[in-house]
Amino acid sequence: DRTGPAVPQTTIFTVMSALALEHRAVNLGQGFPDESGPARVIEAAAAAMREGRNQYPPLAGVPELREAIAAHQRHWYGLEPDVDDGVVVTAGATEAVAAAMLAFVRPGDEVVAMEPFYDSYKASVELAGGTIVPWRLEAPAFRPDLVRLKEIVTDRTRVLLLNSPHNPTGTVLDRAELEAVARVAAERDLLVVTDEVYEHLVFDGLAHVPFASLPGMWERTVSIGSAGKTFSVTGWKIGWATGPADLVGRLKGVKQYLTFASGTPFQYGIAEALASGPEFYEEYVADYAERRDLLASGLADLGFTVHRPQGTYFVTAGAAPLGYADGLALCLELPERCGVVAIPNQVFYADPATPRPEVRFTFCKPREVLEEGLKRLRDGL
Amino acid sequence: DRTGPAVPQTTIFTVMSALALEHRAVNLGQGFPDESGPARVIEAAAAAMREGRNQYPPLAGVPELREAIAAHQRHWYGLEPDVDDGVVVTAGATEAVAAAMLAFVRPGDEVVAMEPFYDSYKASVELAGGTIVPWRLEAPAFRPDLVRLKEIVTDRTRVLLLNSPHNPTGTVLDRAELEAVARVAAERDLLVVTDEVYEHLVFDGLAHVPFASLPGMWERTVSIGSAGKTFSVTGWKIGWATGPADLVGRLKGVKQYLTFASGTPFQYGIAEALASGPEFYEEYVADYAERRDLLASGLADLGFTVHRPQGTYFVTAGAAPLGYADGLALCLELPERCGVVAIPNQVFYADPATPRPEVRFTFCKPREVLEEGLKRLRDGL
Ligand SMILES: CSCCC(=O)C(=O)O
Ligand SMILES: CSCCC(=O)C(=O)O
Repeated sequence: DRTGPAVPQTTIFTVMSALALEHRAVNLGQGFPDESGPARVIEAAAAAMREGRNQYPPLAGVPELREAIAAHQRHWYGLEPDVDDGVVVTAGATEAVAAAMLAFVRPGDEVVAMEPFYDSYKASVELAGGTIVPWRLEAPAFRPDLVRLKEIVTDRTRVLLLNSPHNPTGTVLDRAELEAVARVAAERDLLVVTDEVYEHLVFDGLAHVPFASLPGMWERTVSIGSAGKTFSVTGWKIGWATGPADLVGRLKGVKQYLTFASGTPFQYGIAEALASGPEFYEEYVADYAERRDLLASGLADLGFTVHRPQGTYFVTAGAAPLGYADGLALCLELPERCGVVAIPNQVFYADPATPRPEVRFTFCKPREVLEEGLKRLRDGL
Repeated sequence: DRTGPAVPQTTIFTVMSALALEHRAVNLGQGFPDESGPARVIEAAAAAMREGRNQYPPLAGVPELREAIAAHQRHWYGLEPDVDDGVVVTAGATEAVAAAMLAFVRPGDEVVAMEPFYDSYKASVELAGGTIVPWRLEAPAFRPDLVRLKEIVTDRTRVLLLNSPHNPTGTVLDRAELEAVARVAAERDLLVVTDEVYEHLVFDGLAHVPFASLPGMWERTVSIGSAGKTFSVTGWKIGWATGPADLVGRLKGVKQYLTFASGTPFQYGIAEALASGPEFYEEYVADYAERRDLLASGLADLGFTVHRPQGTYFVTAGAAPLGYADGLALCLELPERCGVVAIPNQVFYADPATPRPEVRFTFCKPREVLEEGLKRLRDGL
């Protein structure tokens, strides 16, 4: 009998990256910058390699990085994860999400997640034998509907999987929204896993509020962060999870058998990166805000319905005014027709087969690449 | 309800590494060398970082590394994995094992594995909802019993999980043994997953024979390899799985949601490493053979029953002649009493609670460290 378990389909990022290569397209799909992070971060990792720091790190990560993660959370948010038992370094946020689902979700359990959701969420919940229950952010505003949240939480809901700043819509939950969510989490005694990898990419003077910082939430929350987006080293895959010792301990129990540990020299590089002063973050946000404006107004000029993101480096653009009701069909056509790659938002829904007009473009690319992409769209559409 | 799924216990390596640190012990436990791999490998990774190769690699790994892995298998074994569809780079062999089990094992399936087994095997099988069925290598010779293999394969056996050179015993399966296993795999239509991370660490003029090279086995076999042991960069966690496109494709389907991909600059470093000429491997084996002899005879002099390994960098030593029937108790005592850390083989058995007198010592340490370890054991025991 050669039938195995149901295996997830190929991620959209692999499909679209292959099309980008084939058509030498301007790749505004997968979220990775073209330019690497600060030279001192690269040099710190290179120095660690030369100093012989190339062997297994401890399961939880090298102490220098765990201390830097804890200090970063203290400095920015007043949180105080325990360096020994409350911090674990992971192979990117993806491993943290997978380990969390495998650690917390039993077969038959439900996980409520903001929809649209990053594609690994559903796959991870299903690997654990659970079911994902979408909590829809409705177009065009993509704000959370708190009445709806109460309706979809059931006795089988085990985990509430949050993501703010939100990929792909760019929605940043505000304090009032977070407080309403916290009330539901407390009332229904839910575990909360919150993916905050875009914590430093918030525009227009808004502030990122970590869910774990809300009164009473620390004890029930695992917070997931990552260095890849903030320091422009997505290929290093250094992420982390923080929280109370019992939850982090369960996550470590699974994670030790997914990868054990990874990226020793990079861990030293990211410890250095997390010591960055406020200028680094200010420049980073200002630079991305400009690129957002460039891409958002360019797409609006082309006739897309543009949703201006509060955070992340993605713009969601509705293609209906251009005559496209099916963003997937459009995205499969764009590489050949225009030499541009984008991601159809519909793949981030629990039912990825229903056509949707929204398409996600990233602006984590140099200005001239964004301009070239816009030009190609103008010429080809 | 705060009861979650059963989460695996902390791995023995984390427990013993903490004891090593606490007692400033000579650490002959976890298998990582003190000295990093060849400078040109380190420099190739550093150069990749400086050239800006720091973003997500393709899911399957960068083409340069996939080509190097395929060329290595062709050169050494005459195998011809397809560079595009038959090779996937993983976050060490651990991720490859986890992804393979999650991709191939359904709840209720059985996985037959050579016992004692590396501790992630059982955890990975159980994460997938399967059961591990031990195929015991009996002390003192630790050879496989092929009659027994036929007895334990049932209609529920889905995967045969091989490991040669074998951790912890150092047994290297010979061609006749592999052929007998292949006959069972063919008769019972089993998938085979084979962990061959110590492929280059085989002594006494013996040769490593990859299971996939046996007639008819390629189509049913996923082979797992790793750079960490061969090039002394265990902390880079660059491993791989190779095999026919359908099996590797299933494994990728899971792996994309465990870590997606990892270690971009290291992948370029390992592509360089795999281009090493025969001198590198000859020196590597000769050097480790000397250290094996040093440790094995030192332990024999102390009264241990020493099992001379044919491969790997581990010596299994029986402590019964020294009055210890319980290797776990001995290993928990050694750090404080002697300032030495070793791993009790019993944790590598399906029933880790049954005391066993065997203890595993690694010789992947400089000669002076091995000598210091032996001296401390002599003084303390
Ligand atoms: C790991 S591939 C996904 C990259 C990403 O964060 C995104 O584009 O949403
Ligand atoms: C990933 S920790 C285990 C290291 C190792 O290969 C061993 O010591 O057996």
